Formats: sequence, C-alpha cells, structure tokens
Amino acid sequence: MTTLGWLDSIGVGVFAVSGVLGAARKQLDLFGALSVAFVCSLGGGTLRDLLLGLTPVGWIRDPRPAAIALSSALAAFVLLRFIALPNRLLLVMDGLGLGLFAVLGAGRALDAGASLFVAVLMGTLSGSAGGAIRDVLCGDVPLVLRSEIYATAALLGETCFGLLLRMGVEREAALWTGGLLCFALRMAALKWNLRLPVAQAKRL
Amino acid sequence: MTTLGWLDSIGVGVFAVSGVLGAARKQLDLFGALSVAFVCSLGGGTLRDLLLGLTPVGWIRDPRPAAIALSSALAAFVLLRFIALPNRLLLVMDGLGLGLFAVLGAGRALDAGASLFVAVLMGTLSGSAGGAIRDVLCGDVPLVLRSEIYATAALLGETCFGLLLRMGVEREAALWTGGLLCFALRMAALKWNLRLPVAQAKRL
Amino acid sequence: MTTLGWLDSIGVGVFAVSGVLGAARKQLDLFGALSVAFVCSLGGGTLRDLLLGLTPVGWIRDPRPAAIALSSALAAFVLLRFIALPNRLLLVMDGLGLGLFAVLGAGRALDAGASLFVAVLMGTLSGSAGGAIRDVLCGDVPLVLRSEIYATAALLGETCFGLLLRMGVEREAALWTGGLLCFALRMAALKWNLRLPVAQAKRL
Repeated sequence: MTTLGWLDSIGVGVFAVSGVLGAARKQLDLFGALSVAFVCSLGGGTLRDLLLGLTPVGWIRDPRPAAIALSSALAAFVLLRFIALPNRLLLVMDGLGLGLFAVLGAGRALDAGASLFVAVLMGTLSGSAGGAIRDVLCGDVPLVLRSEIYATAALLGETCFGLLLRMGVEREAALWTGGLLCFALRMAALKWNLRLPVAQAKRL
Repeated sequence: MTTLGWLDSIGVGVFAVSGVLGAARKQLDLFGALSVAFVCSLGGGTLRDLLLGLTPVGWIRDPRPAAIALSSALAAFVLLRFIALPNRLLLVMDGLGLGLFAVLGAGRALDAGASLFVAVLMGTLSGSAGGAIRDVLCGDVPLVLRSEIYATAALLGETCFGLLLRMGVEREAALWTGGLLCFALRMAALKWNLRLPVAQAKRL
Repeated sequence: MTTLGWLDSIGVGVFAVSGVLGAARKQLDLFGALSVAFVCSLGGGTLRDLLLGLTPVGWIRDPRPAAIALSSALAAFVLLRFIALPNRLLLVMDGLGLGLFAVLGAGRALDAGASLFVAVLMGTLSGSAGGAIRDVLCGDVPLVLRSEIYATAALLGETCFGLLLRMGVEREAALWTGGLLCFALRMAALKWNLRLPVAQAKRL
C-alpha cells in the first residue's frame, strides 16, 4: 500500500473511533455504535460520490474501507470500556484525517471533471459531512456548523491544493502541501481557540 | 437571462437568506450559516436530481446557483446584523420561490420521463426538502411537516401545471399558471391561517 | 402478483402505518404524516438504490409501492382516530416487513454484482434506514441505534440467505429461510427482551 493509502486507512479508523465515542455519549448499543462509526468514516465520501454520480459508491466497489471502519469500531467498542484515550491524541489524529480526506476528496472531484470551485466544495463535504451526519443521528446540531475552525481549515487547504495543481505543481506535492496546511490550521485553531464569527439577526 | 432564470435566481437567494436566519436562531458560526443556506437553497433540487439519476447533480454541472446561494448567504450574514428584514417581505418572497421551485422541479421530472404522479412528488420535494434539511440540521422537527399549508400549496400548483400540460397547454403558460396558483394558495394560507388536520392516534 | 409481491406490499403498508403513528406522537399534520410514512416505507430501499447507482430509484420506475405507501398512510391517518391498533399486531407485522425487506434488499444488491459483505450491509440498510429517517425527522435519536435487537436480526437473516445462495440452494428457498430466521429472531428478541451491549467510554 502507498503512503497515501496508509494515511487514508488511518483516517477511516480515527473517524470510526470518534463515531464510537459519540455513540457512547448517547448510550447507543453495539449496532448503533457500529452504524454511527460507519457513517462517520464513510459518510462524507459517500455523499461526494453520490453528488458526482460516481456510483456504485466507493466502498461498494472496494469494500476495504468499510471493513477497516467496522473492525476499528468493533475494537474501539471493546477497548474504550477499559482504556481512556487522551483527548489530545484523538484531536491530532482527527486533524490528520481531516486534512487527508479534504485534499483527496477535492482531487477526486477534479478527476471527475469538476471545476476548482466545485472541487473545493466537494473536498469540504468529504472531510466534514461524516461528522455532521454522526451528530444528526445522535440528536445534536452538528458541531462543525456551530463553532471552532474545522471545515474552514479543510476549505483553505484544498484551495491551496487546487491552486498549486493549476500552477503546474506535481500532484503528490500539491496533495501534501494542501493537506499539511489544513492540518496546521486545525492545530492552530485548537491551540489558540480560534473561532469564526457567529450568525446574528437583528429583530424588528 | 430569461424571466424564469431571473425568478429562479431570486428563489435561490431568498431560500439562502432563510437559511441564514435559521442559523442565527441557533447561533451557528459563519461556516454553519453558509452551509445551512446552501442546503436550504439547493438541497431540494439536489435530492430530486439524485433520485432521478441526473448526476452529477445540477449545481456541479452549472455552478452558478451555488455561487448565487453562497454570495446571497454571505451578504445576508453581514447585513442581517444591521438591518432587520420585515417578516412579511420574506414570507412573500419565500412563497414566490416555493411556487417557482415546485413547478420547475415537476417540469424537470417530466422531462426525465417520469409519470405525472412521480413528477408531482418530485416537484413537492424540490420546493420543500431544502427547508426540511435546514430544520433537521438546526435540530428541529421540520416546520413543513408540522403545520401550515406549505408543501400542500406546491402539490396543488404542480398538479394544475401537469394537468394543463397534458391538456396540450403551452409549457410556459402552464408553468406560470401552476406557479401562481401555488403562490396564491400559500398567501391565502398565511392570511387566513389555514391548516391541515393534525395526525392523532387513539390509544388502547 | 406473486406471494413475494404480496408480502412486499404488506411490508410497505405496515411501515407506512408505523410512520403515521410516529407522526401522531409528534403532532404532525396530514402532509407531515404522509411524508413520514412515505420515507419510512420507501426510504431504506431508496437509499440502497442510490448507493448502488440503480437510478432512477425503484419507486420512480414503478410507482406502485409509492401509491401503496401513500394510500395506506391516508387510510391510517383517518382510521387511527377511531380505532386503536393492538401494539402486538403492529410489532408482528413490522417483524414480517423487516425480514422481507432485509432479504429482498440483500438479493437486489447481489443481483447488482455486490459481494456478500456489501449485500448484507445493503439489506440491513433496506430494512432499517427507513425507520431511522422517520425518527430523525421526528427529532428523535433513531430507535434502531439505541436498543433492542432489530437490525441485528436483519443482518443475521441476510447472512443466512447469502450463505445458502452460495451453497447452491435455490433462490426462493434461501429467501424464505433467511426472512423467517430474521422474523423469528426479532420475535424472540421482543418476547425475552434481548438487547445488545451498550457503548461505554472510560473517562480519563
């Protein structure tokens, strides 16, 4: 497997673990935890494939990511009863997964012939929609819509990736630059608690 | 741009503003407001395209509606802090958008070879699913399912549109008649507070 | 119509009634009740068709299930005001619908060329996603994720169906065996209140 392939699998696994943690907060059962983990890992990419018309969607053509998501979730379901994960480790790994999913998602859209504008939207969706569906299933307003710089980091990382590609930079190099920019922005946002302004509407 | 094209853009813009208002009620941040506005404007048509198999979905093939939705939402995000919109103006514009989206959605389904029954379902979806997804993302039971005559107006307007087409009326004329009927029904429902009966289940 | 066709229609009708019951709990209006019933009956299969790329989705190509769902929902909307249905009858019929939708869904995925692993995921989705979307629209965390053995029964029934097919058993026989296994497991789970373990996460 290539380095990107390994990182992708790590991203799938980390998002699956975050799904199990969400399920535990809501006292879902084993089936619920596996479902939420699955959706959290693969939901964003699935939605992207559906919108682009790349069907059957990715994990039906090649079920390896689905198997990785389900086995990571099963392991997390068992192990999290005994081992408490340091939150910081999870956030770092989640940031890595976000950066990777974002640039890979944008790249997949470009390959399917989308414009840069659409590719950036698709990449942001790939990185953040899984977590949003997890939150909706758990009965919460999606965290990604509420606070913190999360999807915004993905958006800026992909824009950088897309622009580099346009300028003729080699694809792998552009992927790494965009992905690392996204990761760095996300880590900076966590460290200094950076936030976007909140929507307000004046009342008559 | 044709008259229909202009009206369509206005509909997209109005639904985007209503998305930002929903986001403000729930204190979402800038990214959340733009996302909810996007889904509210384009979600219904996207779902219709997915169900009909018209992929890549509309705003990927022609990203202008996506650009209109995002720029309207950004403008609303800034301006709504300073200017309070009269609620009545919003409701009238929303009614116009509903009527237009409904008949255009039904027309698109007919073009794709659907029966009149399916076209009416698709048009209703185009007009009302965006707002329903907005409400689910904001953690509410969709307003369209709960009360007021909203989707019902769309449904009746499209049925009229479809029947006129079948009777050989010219397409543009049928579109205007159906769309205006929907708009008139929606305005009447608001003025006289018309409601559908509420579901009840007798308990043993 | 074949026996399977009759059973399928019964399944659609039962899921529609369960949608109307959910709508009544949340005081949705007539349009809301019909929408929730529609999604509850046809949502699982629709999602499966979308993921497999079988578009236009089933009920657009052949609108009979959509007509059955809507007319059952309309009848339930009227009758449930006067007649209280014994809960046990509903649960038995829901179990029948689940078993049937699960094996038919898995079979449809196998026909579309999916592996057994993917077919089992698709069948589980067909049987349980409709109810999950109903719960999300009604503002609840999906029951299927929270407790009771429901989707798990579907999963085991389909695995049995798939394995029998692989072993060369005739398709109709495999369908009946898998579907009845699912139904029996669901009834046993209700009778003895069998549950899966709940997700827990140790805190630091």
